[in-house]
Amino acid sequence: MFTRTDALRLDDACTLKHKRAAFSIPEGMIYLDGNSLGVLPASAMTRVKRTVEIEWGQDLITSWHKHGWGELPQKAGDKIARLIGAEAGSVVVTDTISINLFKVLSAAVAKRPGRKIILSDSGNFPSDLYVAQGLCSFMADGHELRVVEPEEVYNAITEDVCVVMITETDYRSARRHNMKEITAKAHEKGCLIIWDLAHSAGAVPGQLMDVNADFAIGCTYKYLNGGPGSPAFVFVNPRLQNEILPALVGWWGHAQPFAFEQNYVAAQGITRMQVGTWPTISMQALDAALDVWADIEMVDVYAKAQKMCALFVELAEARCGAHGVTLYGSRDFAHRGSHVCLRHTQAYAIMQALISRRVIGDFRAPDMMRFGFAPLYNSYVDVWDAVEVLRGVLDGGLWDVEEFRERKAVT
Amino acid sequence: MFTRTDALRLDDACTLKHKRAAFSIPEGMIYLDGNSLGVLPASAMTRVKRTVEIEWGQDLITSWHKHGWGELPQKAGDKIARLIGAEAGSVVVTDTISINLFKVLSAAVAKRPGRKIILSDSGNFPSDLYVAQGLCSFMADGHELRVVEPEEVYNAITEDVCVVMITETDYRSARRHNMKEITAKAHEKGCLIIWDLAHSAGAVPGQLMDVNADFAIGCTYKYLNGGPGSPAFVFVNPRLQNEILPALVGWWGHAQPFAFEQNYVAAQGITRMQVGTWPTISMQALDAALDVWADIEMVDVYAKAQKMCALFVELAEARCGAHGVTLYGSRDFAHRGSHVCLRHTQAYAIMQALISRRVIGDFRAPDMMRFGFAPLYNSYVDVWDAVEVLRGVLDGGLWDVEEFRERKAVT
Repeated sequence: MFTRTDALRLDDACTLKHKRAAFSIPEGMIYLDGNSLGVLPASAMTRVKRTVEIEWGQDLITSWHKHGWGELPQKAGDKIARLIGAEAGSVVVTDTISINLFKVLSAAVAKRPGRKIILSDSGNFPSDLYVAQGLCSFMADGHELRVVEPEEVYNAITEDVCVVMITETDYRSARRHNMKEITAKAHEKGCLIIWDLAHSAGAVPGQLMDVNADFAIGCTYKYLNGGPGSPAFVFVNPRLQNEILPALVGWWGHAQPFAFEQNYVAAQGITRMQVGTWPTISMQALDAALDVWADIEMVDVYAKAQKMCALFVELAEARCGAHGVTLYGSRDFAHRGSHVCLRHTQAYAIMQALISRRVIGDFRAPDMMRFGFAPLYNSYVDVWDAVEVLRGVLDGGLWDVEEFRERKAVT
Repeated sequence: MFTRTDALRLDDACTLKHKRAAFSIPEGMIYLDGNSLGVLPASAMTRVKRTVEIEWGQDLITSWHKHGWGELPQKAGDKIARLIGAEAGSVVVTDTISINLFKVLSAAVAKRPGRKIILSDSGNFPSDLYVAQGLCSFMADGHELRVVEPEEVYNAITEDVCVVMITETDYRSARRHNMKEITAKAHEKGCLIIWDLAHSAGAVPGQLMDVNADFAIGCTYKYLNGGPGSPAFVFVNPRLQNEILPALVGWWGHAQPFAFEQNYVAAQGITRMQVGTWPTISMQALDAALDVWADIEMVDVYAKAQKMCALFVELAEARCGAHGVTLYGSRDFAHRGSHVCLRHTQAYAIMQALISRRVIGDFRAPDMMRFGFAPLYNSYVDVWDAVEVLRGVLDGGLWDVEEFRERKAVT
């Protein structure tokens, strides 16, 4: 029987435990929503303060050179590249994930004239499907989005597909697609492929270059802790960077933005995925947040996340199963993302009760409670305590985290 | 003969003079680049600190409701609407100016099938031209960008034009197009019209609804002081909001983003111009910066800017004309924007010297020095002193702002 003491022992032996001190975690809160909005790294707070007070406030326009504002998209991109299995110079931080998808999707569609099908699956995040629908409506030339079930994607990759557009880690079930097999099949059939890494970046080991992916996009406000709505990233395989052109281009993607020429000439490399000026304060917060990852290996992060997910499910089923709580999605912890969805008919009310007791997850309609596990700051004892609070809520009790910790301290 | 004492008297009589205290202006700096990056409002610093420490740091994901993150694009949009002559509910703050141009341009093109010409002029900001070129290249169906000289725009509006896409205030010469006449001509010929207000918003009185404009876009980091790269705005005339659809759509423009439906259903109104999640820290800085404008009438701002521009040109010509400094663009101060471009063969070197002497403007290739006048924090004595420093540089002297002020204090 696994006890709280066992959880404490696991934490004590954890090679990532020192990282928790890099974050500002609210007192008494068990935060299991780092897959939605990561917590504040102390480095980000410091950087934002400097950016506003010194860079904007004192140095103003000269900060573009003096403080390297102009290089932030590439600099932050390089820090992310290592985590997602890409090389330096193949990732840029810019705009939002949906906008970056639009760029690479339009570029991919233009690269495969004659093919009219964009293939995706029903487990994809809805905004990705909307982006494809918006593009197809606009083109009005027979391009269409074909949505199949996740397990049918592999077989649905045929020679009429121009681009396969799927999310590696399902935002609800945490199921992971097999990037290697699907990418290989896409290339075998002459398709291009776009991987959405929204729930993968900072959670699972990167493999973009290993699998020879064409494009990838992802967001930075989840596991990467870039702050609310921090700019997204886009990856283009170096072999394609100078061969593709999005429908959406702008001056920061020009070969010489400050020459103010009338005609667009695309910059070489990943830079052509940039369009306009980025929100520098948010970008600086992200760039500083990424420094926390400098000495981290994703395999270690993933190993801990898998253990935390497995433990959470085991404890929740053992202690809360009688209350009708069930796991949504796979229990194959070796092949899934770092969040867990539990289902319950009263999921919304239960999540509200958990939040009022300072255990933070999120609700996903119609009946899901989603909990994310961020190995840099979540501990095994967080997992143990969260389940205990969940059981307290389900039992109709009034426990909150502080009460619970005090109780533990005296028993 | 206008003296520094006259400038001080004008400042003393200025009805906007109390606003300067709302900004953090570096000691000893004469900042004439508010048309490129506005200075830091104290309110923005306070808001950013609260956003990072309390909202992100403590309240985390619950801030979306608790601190109104979800309403920021509309809330900030409404504050801008008043300044640009639009009504509440017709402006949203989101993404960048180039991306917003892409949205409204694609929507306009789709609304005028059969017409293939996008009309613009050579005075437009290059990124706007790039956006149109990118869209036309992608469509590859005969759509083309036609670029004429600014003074030819009116006559170039013909029935083969689907959309007229021009910038009201020229980023170099400060020439302003006649919005009323050009919009009326566009509508007479059945074209849609997009106004870029990058160098107008916060500088010249808004007239979007007065002239019945279809679309407008603009940025917020210039005269509106939203901070480096702060998100841009987009206006859609209420009569068109539910009739148009951009090629680029995403979940925040969905009628029910959190229903996570597979099919895109556009939200009613201006909301459909939103795509993905916004950079909240930068957005909060902007929202707070806009509060400085709450009791401001644009006619007062513009009147002061016109006087400052006229005075700057008069003083510069009188004192620096012999050194080969000439005005670029119109001297019709009743019909121009709030910046001035001076030409000189050594413009780059002179601007560097000015910056080292803490008079900040910017250089625009090949031979322009650009100075922006922001009536909320620039004073008439700033104008007088800046010209004096410019003269000092041109005379080959070593004056800087501090020395100059000290000298004045003792003479």
